[in-house]
This record gives sequence, C-alpha cells and structure tokens, in this order.
Amino acid sequence: MTENLEQQFAFLQEIDKLKQITRATEITGGSRKENSGEHSWHIAMYALILAEHAAPDVDINRVIKMLLIHDLVEIDAGDVPIHQQIDVEAHEAKERAAAKRIFGMLPQDQAEALHDLWTEFEASVTPDAIFAKSIDRVQPVLLNIANGGGSWTDYNVTLEQLEHRVGQKVARGSRSIWQFVRQKAVQFFETV
Amino acid sequence: MTENLEQQFAFLQEIDKLKQITRATEITGGSRKENSGEHSWHIAMYALILAEHAAPDVDINRVIKMLLIHDLVEIDAGDVPIHQQIDVEAHEAKERAAAKRIFGMLPQDQAEALHDLWTEFEASVTPDAIFAKSIDRVQPVLLNIANGGGSWTDYNVTLEQLEHRVGQKVARGSRSIWQFVRQKAVQFFETV
Repeated sequence: MTENLEQQFAFLQEIDKLKQITRATEITGGSRKENSGEHSWHIAMYALILAEHAAPDVDINRVIKMLLIHDLVEIDAGDVPIHQQIDVEAHEAKERAAAKRIFGMLPQDQAEALHDLWTEFEASVTPDAIFAKSIDRVQPVLLNIANGGGSWTDYNVTLEQLEHRVGQKVARGSRSIWQFVRQKAVQFFETV
Repeated sequence: MTENLEQQFAFLQEIDKLKQITRATEITGGSRKENSGEHSWHIAMYALILAEHAAPDVDINRVIKMLLIHDLVEIDAGDVPIHQQIDVEAHEAKERAAAKRIFGMLPQDQAEALHDLWTEFEASVTPDAIFAKSIDRVQPVLLNIANGGGSWTDYNVTLEQLEHRVGQKVARGSRSIWQFVRQKAVQFFETV
C-alpha cells in the first residue's frame, strides 16, 4: 500500500503540469486563454449537468472519469486547437507515447485501467466515449459565443466549418444538445 | 427539455468564473497561484487515484461529484485560505447565500440534488463527505512541499499547526494517506 502511495502521489504531482498547458479558447471575459486543467474541470461539470441529454446506455460516472483524464497527454504532446492544421499521424504518435509515460507512473493495475479508459475515449466508439467527445467539443462553442468569437476569430472559422468540425461530433453524442447550441451559433454568426 | 438546456447552459457559463478565483496555494514551480477551477479538477483526480485508500463504504463517484462542485460558492464568497483568521459565521452565511443563488440557476430537481450534495460535503458527517474533505485538505500539503513551503511560508505555519488544522481532517478520511503525507511533511519541516 505504501509503495502504491509513493507512485500515486508522484503521478498526482506530475499531472499538476496540465495547469500550464494553454488552449486556444479564452475564459469568459476574454482576459486570458483557458488552461487544460481548468478546462478538464469545466467539461466534467458539463457532463454532470447535461447527463439527462445523453443516450440511456451512457454511464455518466465513466464519462466524468474519461473527461478528467482525457487531456493528460497534453503534458508531453501539447494542445492542438481543433481549427489548426497539423500532421495528425505524428501528433497521435506523440500522444500515445505520452499516455504510456504518464499513466505508466501509476501502480500497474491502475495504469492499465486508466490507459484503457483514455484509449476508449480516443477511439470514440462506445456510447460513453461518444458522449464524452461530444461534451469536449461543445464547451468551446459556448465560450466563443460568450467572448464575441474567441478562437473562431483567431482561426477565421465559418458556420459551415463549425458544423463540419464540431457539430457532427456533438450531434453524435446528443442531438438535442447540438440542436440547442447550433441555434445559438447561428444567431452569433448572423451578427458578425 | 429545451427549457432545461437554457438553464443548464446559463449555469455552465456562470461557473466559468471559478477559473478567476485565486487560492493561497501555488501551482508546481511556483510561477503563479492556483485557481479554484483547476484545483477542483486536481482534487477530483486525487479522489479517483486514491480511492483504494478510502473506507470500504465510500462511493467514489459521489466523492468526485462533491469535489467538482464543492468550491462553486467561492464565485460569490471568495476563497478563504485555511491558515487565515476570519469571521467564520459571516463567511458561512455568505457561502449559503452563494449556494442558493448558483445552484438555483439549474432546473429545480437538479438544483436541489446539487445543493444537497454541497450541504452534505460541508457538514462532513457521511463517509463520502469525510473522504472528500480529507482529499481537499491533502492536495495543498503536497503542493506546498513541492514548492519549498508555498502558503505555509506566507502564513508562518508550523508542523504543529499543520497537524491540528490539516492532519486531523485528512486522517479522518484516510489514516494511511495522512501517515504517508505526514512523513513527507515532517521531512520538509526538518529542512527549513
């Protein structure tokens, strides 16, 4: 048990670095960019609050865990804004190496369980992962609307691009959530 | 359902403000103070990772939810460092008013459920709340050790004060966690 604690506290100390990974999205008010630590908290809250709009077979407790750990790989691989063009294959390789190193700091059983949960999230096939991905995509939309454009302005994003890059994934997790948020986005793009 | 979404998204937008509430503890490296949004993520991770050290009747999914919402009242009431002297009664009244306003933004059922969960956390009587409180207290200890003292230096905290203000609450939630962390703290105080 003491050996477990040694590894577990080393891991908990290491992941503190996620608070220094900067994202493209600004926090409300636009005073600074959001970091991936507080983003992970915010989307875990999104999952908790929006649970009733998920498919009936979604286990919201697993979704919350997925969302708490989903960005840890950014400690090594960095955050890539969704509207930025990148070498996807190279970036995914970096993320896989990061997952191996970071989860590997934990006792073996726990390392494997969390690595599997992250892999499931990335694959986006199970109902839990589909809903978790949907939640991860919808939060920046709301922040950008609240901030008069935010990262959409930085990357010259159009409503059509938003539908394609974000809307499809959100709707896959919850049609009613995307219907609601899409309406807000349409209203926003009409005013700019 | 659409009316629920309107209230739920207004709430999720409002709680973004937690990212602007500054705590006494510094993030690793000491470059800046931690905010209560990223703190809430970090301690939810603590609960997830340290679950095996909780009492067998603790429901870790409820603990994670408690920790995700436990600091929302700070949006109105601010953060009070544990080592600072304050008018406790006046501050608790502020927090109760904050809980009423913030959770009250949600659809009624959800507002009541989360308000009850927060009240349970604050009362610190049930096994889930005792473990959640324990986790909330232990994270700053590790950050302060990593940062060469951190908020302990700011508030001239001694090992005896730490035992009294922090140790008792942590040990109540998990004796093995406090035993482990206490050893690290003792080593730290011997070097300063």
